Amino acid sequence: MPSEKEFSQEITPQSVDFSRWYIDTIRRAELMDYSPVRGCIVFRPDGYEIWERIQQALDKRFKETGHRNAYFPLFIPESFLEKEKEHIEGFNPELPWVTEVGDEKLEERLAVRPTSETIIGYMYQRWIQSYRDLPVLLNQWANVVRWEKRTLPFLRTSEFLWQEGHTAHATEEEAREETMRMLNVYEEFARNELALPVIKGQKTPSERFAGAVDTYSIEAMMKDGRALQAGTSHYLGQNFARSFNIQFLDKDNELKYVHTTSWGVSTRLIGAVVMAHGDYRGLRLPPRLAPCQVVCIPVGPLKTRAMVLERFDKLFASLKEAGLRVKADTREEFSPGWKFNEYELRGIPLRVELGPRDVENNQVVVVRRDTGEKLTVSQDGLAKSIESLLEDVQKNMFTEASQFMRDNSHVAATLADLERIISDAGGFVLAGWCGRDECEQVIKEKTKATARNIPFDPPEKMERCAVCDDAADHSVWYARSY
Amino acid sequence: MPSEKEFSQEITPQSVDFSRWYIDTIRRAELMDYSPVRGCIVFRPDGYEIWERIQQALDKRFKETGHRNAYFPLFIPESFLEKEKEHIEGFNPELPWVTEVGDEKLEERLAVRPTSETIIGYMYQRWIQSYRDLPVLLNQWANVVRWEKRTLPFLRTSEFLWQEGHTAHATEEEAREETMRMLNVYEEFARNELALPVIKGQKTPSERFAGAVDTYSIEAMMKDGRALQAGTSHYLGQNFARSFNIQFLDKDNELKYVHTTSWGVSTRLIGAVVMAHGDYRGLRLPPRLAPCQVVCIPVGPLKTRAMVLERFDKLFASLKEAGLRVKADTREEFSPGWKFNEYELRGIPLRVELGPRDVENNQVVVVRRDTGEKLTVSQDGLAKSIESLLEDVQKNMFTEASQFMRDNSHVAATLADLERIISDAGGFVLAGWCGRDECEQVIKEKTKATARNIPFDPPEKMERCAVCDDAADHSVWYARSY
Repeated sequence: MPSEKEFSQEITPQSVDFSRWYIDTIRRAELMDYSPVRGCIVFRPDGYEIWERIQQALDKRFKETGHRNAYFPLFIPESFLEKEKEHIEGFNPELPWVTEVGDEKLEERLAVRPTSETIIGYMYQRWIQSYRDLPVLLNQWANVVRWEKRTLPFLRTSEFLWQEGHTAHATEEEAREETMRMLNVYEEFARNELALPVIKGQKTPSERFAGAVDTYSIEAMMKDGRALQAGTSHYLGQNFARSFNIQFLDKDNELKYVHTTSWGVSTRLIGAVVMAHGDYRGLRLPPRLAPCQVVCIPVGPLKTRAMVLERFDKLFASLKEAGLRVKADTREEFSPGWKFNEYELRGIPLRVELGPRDVENNQVVVVRRDTGEKLTVSQDGLAKSIESLLEDVQKNMFTEASQFMRDNSHVAATLADLERIISDAGGFVLAGWCGRDECEQVIKEKTKATARNIPFDPPEKMERCAVCDDAADHSVWYARSY
Repeated sequence: MPSEKEFSQEITPQSVDFSRWYIDTIRRAELMDYSPVRGCIVFRPDGYEIWERIQQALDKRFKETGHRNAYFPLFIPESFLEKEKEHIEGFNPELPWVTEVGDEKLEERLAVRPTSETIIGYMYQRWIQSYRDLPVLLNQWANVVRWEKRTLPFLRTSEFLWQEGHTAHATEEEAREETMRMLNVYEEFARNELALPVIKGQKTPSERFAGAVDTYSIEAMMKDGRALQAGTSHYLGQNFARSFNIQFLDKDNELKYVHTTSWGVSTRLIGAVVMAHGDYRGLRLPPRLAPCQVVCIPVGPLKTRAMVLERFDKLFASLKEAGLRVKADTREEFSPGWKFNEYELRGIPLRVELGPRDVENNQVVVVRRDTGEKLTVSQDGLAKSIESLLEDVQKNMFTEASQFMRDNSHVAATLADLERIISDAGGFVLAGWCGRDECEQVIKEKTKATARNIPFDPPEKMERCAVCDDAADHSVWYARSY
């Protein structure tokens, strides 16, 4: 618990410096702390619990779509990574190498896994013989390491936690279906659990996963208008199947290579939730993710406290019994005002206040973190009222974030437009693209915005490439991104 | 799925070679596979799901006793490990070192964590200032690496999965209470979830965790009479507090070092369950852990199959609806007999058979994996009957394992007795111990049995040391162990 003095050092306002606001908030709310290992953070209990809820929500969806969990080794022999050329080139500079154990040098260096396509590919080759063995639908919850040059807590850390789905199929069609199925799972999960609207689409070739044929992503908008890639789903074609010789005897008695997919989301989602929903007071957590959903605080003069507490304890117990994640702060050494600030900073969706007048009137005061609204609610059936308010908060946060995303999305017909919008307003900008890498690179150099994805469902169909004015093959969302 | 031919290669009988039986069983039952990385295994879905159930059962208990989860970095700087001398000496030869990232040499080597006392100690020093910050009660679910010379799937692998609890307290008394509380949680969990009777007790100094003041363990007996350490709980005193300067201002305004504990169980429990319950037919899984609890198989002549399947589907649906983990195998290319063998090998607790006569008589045949017993059960209220049978199987497996443990526990008054029993009968042997390290070492050299622990509740109080015949301070369980 921070002292009163510490708290008076307010968090930096978002408008002054969004990055500092972010860091101030996640540290003060005790979601994380820096560790003594470069680029690695400590997930403190409130941060980790958000991840646990993300895990539960996703794991359920993975199992409902027929996947099972497995676990593969942390270490990947160098020779494995080299089997898929683009793959090793993509990851090489970020790989930590284990070169010795105890006092002995290893014969072959072992990479600490940046992702597991290669070692899983090797195992699939052993497990898959016949069309009867397909599809293989596995997922792994694991830590991975990518030694990034610039790090940012949750969003880009040397070590992070994630899930990686890896599936193998008999046909391209099935594998592509799987790729889309999981992208849709991510979108639905982001919407309903994280209250996060996202844009589904396909990555341009330059933004593809190293080794993939096609990469798809969901992209979310942060409160500073920047994009954050919140999840990816890859159709890997037969690239890894060929590198690892994953062949099966098909119904027609022919030996064929499987088609594989992989898909993942990571602990960067914690950062996404913070940056997409937070405000000047700190965190705002969607009720489904929040470690604590309701904080109960007795108010009014101290001399009435004993009387208030009697009722308070009963109401608190009724909320707890209803299965709500609820916390009571009855400490006398902190004022109600201090507590209000503290729990607003921590993003707790609802605050319940009970004072002597509320006791008299058989009511409580409920304050919503999302809108700041103060409501008077009857003590009768309180748990039910709170439950329905939490639903409301969850929905409203999605609505608000969707509105924000719409308000900060623009269309640009020309490179000049695009430059102006990115530098003045920020946000997402839709522009036409001819499909040439050069044109994409020009935008990157001029605006520092990158192609986020080619949306499946663009708000407009752009006719001409914003850079070269040739006919546009695609409408692309551009944005500066995390 | 293995072919019929593969299955005809029976698993090695336990009596011929217990280790080969173990390996044959876990591979054939697809709990694991070897990986291309030395000493690392792949946890296949059925193996990993056992671990998921262990995690859920323990995590619930940890939370009920006031703990929260957090996550600390995988990498530990060399200088951290060196701060606690015994600690680094204990782990040094087993540590994999990351020495370079991409093409760059690191200034300081990073160990891949063998356990996390040091890095957590460092963070505790930052978080703990006052008695108000205590106790700190955290747990971490993580992978750890110890490069063991001899490995055995699940029991001793280079990388394994575990949980490590780490707590900090104001007083020795509180820390010791915590150490015991978690040992008791482990014992109750092993009994009720794994159907595994264990002996609680204190480790002798030579078997202590590197850096601990006192180590306690639960020890289980495998079907070959060997012991397996199934969980440990350590009172670390102020050792790590001093190394990492974890001090707090106490109520009396004095600066004091905290007292810490740590406690853990790992994926070796999967191996423990296999070795403690398995028989000549393969796995026997306790219903609470089993990925699949009931397998339903239609039987009788193929020409009656369509008629049988109609009823079969309804019964299967009713079991599924009741929340049972149930599987139907209606494949026609495999005979019922082949399926019986297959699912017995996989340890599924109950088999439900339905044939034409059963349809007529409104009954099913249920076969228990634990006893082999065949029961005729009415189709009315089948789910309820199955649920109660599963409870029965769970209880009976614990009773059987307890009986086995009693039958294979002995008492030895002298070293000669001890040698004879260990070499002839095996199992656990209780003997007196004067408390001198030399006497313990003599037993180890002569019998290859080690002191498992000093039980809190020995069946007899031994008067004299089995080796030197001096007065015995303790009664100790000796056994060969995994």
